[in-house]
Amino acid sequence: MSGNTFGTLFRITTWGESHGAAVGVVVDGCPAGLLLDESDIQEELDRRRPGQSDITTPRKEEDKAEILSGVFSGKTTGAPVSILVRNKDVDSSKYEALRNTPRPGHADLTYELKYGLRDWRGGGRSSARETIGRVAAGAIAKKILRMNGIEVLGHVVELGGISAKEANVEQIRTNTEKNPVRCADPDAALQMVAMIQAARSEGDSVGGIVDILCVGVPAGVGEPVFDKLSAQLAHGLMSIGAVKSVEIGIGAKCSLMKGSQMNDPITIHDGKPGTLTNNAGGILGGISNGEPILCRIAVKPTPSISKEQSTVDLVAMKDTRIKITGRHDPTIPPRIVPVAEAMVALVLVDMMMRGGFLKTSSLG
Amino acid sequence: MSGNTFGTLFRITTWGESHGAAVGVVVDGCPAGLLLDESDIQEELDRRRPGQSDITTPRKEEDKAEILSGVFSGKTTGAPVSILVRNKDVDSSKYEALRNTPRPGHADLTYELKYGLRDWRGGGRSSARETIGRVAAGAIAKKILRMNGIEVLGHVVELGGISAKEANVEQIRTNTEKNPVRCADPDAALQMVAMIQAARSEGDSVGGIVDILCVGVPAGVGEPVFDKLSAQLAHGLMSIGAVKSVEIGIGAKCSLMKGSQMNDPITIHDGKPGTLTNNAGGILGGISNGEPILCRIAVKPTPSISKEQSTVDLVAMKDTRIKITGRHDPTIPPRIVPVAEAMVALVLVDMMMRGGFLKTSSLG
Amino acid sequence: MSGNTFGTLFRITTWGESHGAAVGVVVDGCPAGLLLDESDIQEELDRRRPGQSDITTPRKEEDKAEILSGVFSGKTTGAPVSILVRNKDVDSSKYEALRNTPRPGHADLTYELKYGLRDWRGGGRSSARETIGRVAAGAIAKKILRMNGIEVLGHVVELGGISAKEANVEQIRTNTEKNPVRCADPDAALQMVAMIQAARSEGDSVGGIVDILCVGVPAGVGEPVFDKLSAQLAHGLMSIGAVKSVEIGIGAKCSLMKGSQMNDPITIHDGKPGTLTNNAGGILGGISNGEPILCRIAVKPTPSISKEQSTVDLVAMKDTRIKITGRHDPTIPPRIVPVAEAMVALVLVDMMMRGGFLKTSSLG
Amino acid sequence: MSGNTFGTLFRITTWGESHGAAVGVVVDGCPAGLLLDESDIQEELDRRRPGQSDITTPRKEEDKAEILSGVFSGKTTGAPVSILVRNKDVDSSKYEALRNTPRPGHADLTYELKYGLRDWRGGGRSSARETIGRVAAGAIAKKILRMNGIEVLGHVVELGGISAKEANVEQIRTNTEKNPVRCADPDAALQMVAMIQAARSEGDSVGGIVDILCVGVPAGVGEPVFDKLSAQLAHGLMSIGAVKSVEIGIGAKCSLMKGSQMNDPITIHDGKPGTLTNNAGGILGGISNGEPILCRIAVKPTPSISKEQSTVDLVAMKDTRIKITGRHDPTIPPRIVPVAEAMVALVLVDMMMRGGFLKTSSLG
Repeated sequence: MSGNTFGTLFRITTWGESHGAAVGVVVDGCPAGLLLDESDIQEELDRRRPGQSDITTPRKEEDKAEILSGVFSGKTTGAPVSILVRNKDVDSSKYEALRNTPRPGHADLTYELKYGLRDWRGGGRSSARETIGRVAAGAIAKKILRMNGIEVLGHVVELGGISAKEANVEQIRTNTEKNPVRCADPDAALQMVAMIQAARSEGDSVGGIVDILCVGVPAGVGEPVFDKLSAQLAHGLMSIGAVKSVEIGIGAKCSLMKGSQMNDPITIHDGKPGTLTNNAGGILGGISNGEPILCRIAVKPTPSISKEQSTVDLVAMKDTRIKITGRHDPTIPPRIVPVAEAMVALVLVDMMMRGGFLKTSSLG
Repeated sequence: MSGNTFGTLFRITTWGESHGAAVGVVVDGCPAGLLLDESDIQEELDRRRPGQSDITTPRKEEDKAEILSGVFSGKTTGAPVSILVRNKDVDSSKYEALRNTPRPGHADLTYELKYGLRDWRGGGRSSARETIGRVAAGAIAKKILRMNGIEVLGHVVELGGISAKEANVEQIRTNTEKNPVRCADPDAALQMVAMIQAARSEGDSVGGIVDILCVGVPAGVGEPVFDKLSAQLAHGLMSIGAVKSVEIGIGAKCSLMKGSQMNDPITIHDGKPGTLTNNAGGILGGISNGEPILCRIAVKPTPSISKEQSTVDLVAMKDTRIKITGRHDPTIPPRIVPVAEAMVALVLVDMMMRGGFLKTSSLG
Repeated sequence: MSGNTFGTLFRITTWGESHGAAVGVVVDGCPAGLLLDESDIQEELDRRRPGQSDITTPRKEEDKAEILSGVFSGKTTGAPVSILVRNKDVDSSKYEALRNTPRPGHADLTYELKYGLRDWRGGGRSSARETIGRVAAGAIAKKILRMNGIEVLGHVVELGGISAKEANVEQIRTNTEKNPVRCADPDAALQMVAMIQAARSEGDSVGGIVDILCVGVPAGVGEPVFDKLSAQLAHGLMSIGAVKSVEIGIGAKCSLMKGSQMNDPITIHDGKPGTLTNNAGGILGGISNGEPILCRIAVKPTPSISKEQSTVDLVAMKDTRIKITGRHDPTIPPRIVPVAEAMVALVLVDMMMRGGFLKTSSLG
Repeated sequence: MSGNTFGTLFRITTWGESHGAAVGVVVDGCPAGLLLDESDIQEELDRRRPGQSDITTPRKEEDKAEILSGVFSGKTTGAPVSILVRNKDVDSSKYEALRNTPRPGHADLTYELKYGLRDWRGGGRSSARETIGRVAAGAIAKKILRMNGIEVLGHVVELGGISAKEANVEQIRTNTEKNPVRCADPDAALQMVAMIQAARSEGDSVGGIVDILCVGVPAGVGEPVFDKLSAQLAHGLMSIGAVKSVEIGIGAKCSLMKGSQMNDPITIHDGKPGTLTNNAGGILGGISNGEPILCRIAVKPTPSISKEQSTVDLVAMKDTRIKITGRHDPTIPPRIVPVAEAMVALVLVDMMMRGGFLKTSSLG
């Protein structure tokens, strides 16, 4: 596998399976002197946790973080921070029946083909539980960013075909966490919830779109030509399960624009050069320009649905049909918000360290 | 900068500026025993070269590749392959006037802010000429892939708002290189050319969309959870200048689908498991499933336009207006096709080596 | 810190402090299908464990390994293997007095200078307990190597000035684990034990030399020019605390030889080319040649001694004297043997994967 | 091969063969704003160049460096610096006879076994000419270090069994470059020259020992636990051809010391903590402590000797004998001095960037 480490100077390594003993992460490169305790981590894990509302899976997990290393007397020491979360409410019974019949839209078949065997309990390593490590590490990254005046704000902008009205930063900050779909438009949020419930009642699921906005990132972050900030963000965001596209700024819509529309006019803001519009999403030539950074991801509908589906029996090697009966989210975007924020925050801290914007050894 | 190397086992390092002495690439990790000479490289460089048709920049560059190392008696030796292309038709005169007035939509301002100075001649390192190294290295990657029955086929599917009809593999193979826009739909191609000419005559430019299809990739390629094949493709493709989005399979459209529509039904094909549809784009859980791999990128309109634009004078630190008069492409997608193919091929070879699908030391 | 990950394809990340909650390692890149349980790990941890004999520290640690991920139904799945060892017999009382007086020969001062604070309990991250993660991961690497007919054999060849007689492979295999100093020469072992006890009774400590021999490594392992097998071994071995030199083959003695003595004559062995002598230590040009690989490390005397020593008071910023009274090993070489074997095994597996000698995804 | 890149933030990629068209290096991560021209590079290349004195190979190479990118108006731009040196005095005639008879002590056989073929002209990639790229890149690193008050001083301390008297920093600075063996002890230098000439007249070669001293390195450089400064130095130095051991500080002699002798007493120097002795060689726990850093390497005698030697004929697969008649150095240490300095400088700059001691984007 050998792909479970992300980042260069601020580097995380995640591990763990859905129904194994635990999941966790090692955060390497956290500078010494950062005030850190479990509550910093817990806050973000609670946003990701199942069972927060009736539109998420009923799996009950406290997702209690334990910091095992790297913190002494309430401060980070510069040593790797190892964080562990035990799996508690594990029920593999529903998966036994699916051992030999890979679920469409899931990684069951590809894991089986690559590794020759797989941990079939709850999706094993390819479960969304894998993202706990990302979110726990992202909580540290976000804390470092906040200390540097940088905010990372994710929110759902479309779900099941329902689009939110465009929101400004203040609305995103204020409204997003007030509804279970994490949408900054309260009216759209209500419709989204109804849409999710309708889909669930049909045994189906819905997809959506999530925006991540970063405010306060200084100009100069990003390492051309392959480690452009945009490229690192694309890497990090596309590595999240269920994400099928990553856009920066105006994104795919740029294909329909003329140069004279797309180019953001440059002007003097508060004595320094800035842009009048932000189609570029805060990144030009792979380097931040000081404007807000905007990323967008499309999230596919949850592949676990209770409608009957076609698949194959890997032992008999013939076509068959299955019905999935485990506990699942009817939609992913609301719970992916903290995961996407985490990946963006991890990329920002790492790239800011690479560019010399953040201290690497000690905050001292 | 420190971001000019890409890949883990099959690894490239590019260098060079638009108006410097030369541009080039070092390809490390090419197995020994591959038949290779300049013509293998030249074929792909000629597809990327300016001046191929009247819809590209009139800059005249032969882009003649010289292999300086790693090949002996017509075969690679396992040592790094260094490839050099001299810049010939360099005309920096038009850029002198733009030294202190960063061009909107370009990296002029971000390079200036990050590095404190910049090579302002022709865009310097952030010029599209930087992609010569990618294409030269990609030519080697594509040769290795072809020997393994894998094809990487890029083509323009939308340009200036004109959409091509959906094309099958055979049409892509046959039609794409027959028209200057690299579109597999000959009728759409004609309209696209007209659209480009219209935009140019208005002093403007147009964007578009490029698909990259990979046929023959075996199941099992990709290293979860951060080095998923999709994440690596997103990284590689988003690192190309002018790309503002990367999609895998159905891409952003997944947001409007239900799970029952999105999930590709699994079935037995020729005695092995395959899928009936390919919304996933050949990748599930970050691992290839044996179906064709489909990537899509949106390419912004060329930022260099001759219409007057607003910018700032960095010396006087005040608003001003500029007109860009150098030689430029009025649209990027046709010329980005070989670059995108190169990045995809580089990712595939590297990830196939990491997964043990391709030999690393010697083709034997 | 950001330096807690080692390896490219077979990659470990270690974490944990001497007196923290636990220490551990994440092993990424272990192929699926390897039979693995805690006993495989425990065997090697028991060789490293304190309190094995009366020449080691009296700290009592069971060092019980818990595998938290990556294993399902007794086999590895390809997912990262997370291994945790709780710290049990933690006694920080003796260290309280040393908070502001860095111990000579230890990393107390350098950690303080780098990070601005440090976990002063038991050496924190710079404690030899950090090597538990290495040994646990090395146990997996050694198992993979054994399945491929490769043995990694460490043994003490000099201790406190007492040199062992040269031993052949059979003697190393048979004798090393039979005495507490891990010396293949039983007579020298007895003298070494006496020397250690004498040093301890004087409140002092002794250094020594450890050889690591690898039998069965195929020709062709190593990636010139920077990732030569020798360079990777030097990196891995020099990263172990207390190691002050790394030699390959004849090592430093080569400086006194003529070319005609140093060059190993090449000859046909069993139908293939081999060498008559092995001054090169099995590596030429950074690539293994099929002969046994020989590494040698010099290990400094334990810096913790009970004799009074000069140091400074970091608060008063003036000279002072300290006596160290915690529990310590009077010599390191016997306990470093399994650690050095682990590092060598980790390098070999990683480099064999990079060279295509070992499967990366699945043992099939 | 895939091992031709070294470093994380200050990263070099070398390429080229002894008798190919050219050799070179790409230096990535050089901050913008550094005054740089060919003369900076040439100075170091001239120290490495063959034919500097009558104790080196008579191969005549000007080794003229050409900077192809990354420099604009006399300053680095932050973009990769590509440096090329053409091979001029190439004479492959002597090697033709050795195509099928690998030279003992060389990498001929291991390259053949690994890659299945090899560039047999002048040692191909495994030639000492490969080090040109290291030295050229090292020249940039040394310039950056000098601007930060850091000197890297290599000198020969033993050659052909003749030991130099211990020299202080001033003697090393003054004397080393005054004699062809680069020894700080002028009397020993004379004997060394005589010894080399004697060995050459016998058709033989001699080995030796080189020390590299770094003055001015601040405390805090090094990234435990795997990327300790000592481990990185060992990696870099052991990656140089002909090096068979790397020692830090007192090195292998530590094995004969007691803890009370080895531990460097800590004391207040100029108001800050320092050590009275420097057995540690300036590194504790893998982190610099502010004292001079001392590395030592043992260099084997040149494997190319004109005495007849035993080898095999790879075509007939039987034993045979060869006489090597090309142009060779009778000893390596004097010419390895600038190479070793380069590797140490490269490690220092990279590790100082990782630790936040040096700017990464712009010298401002």
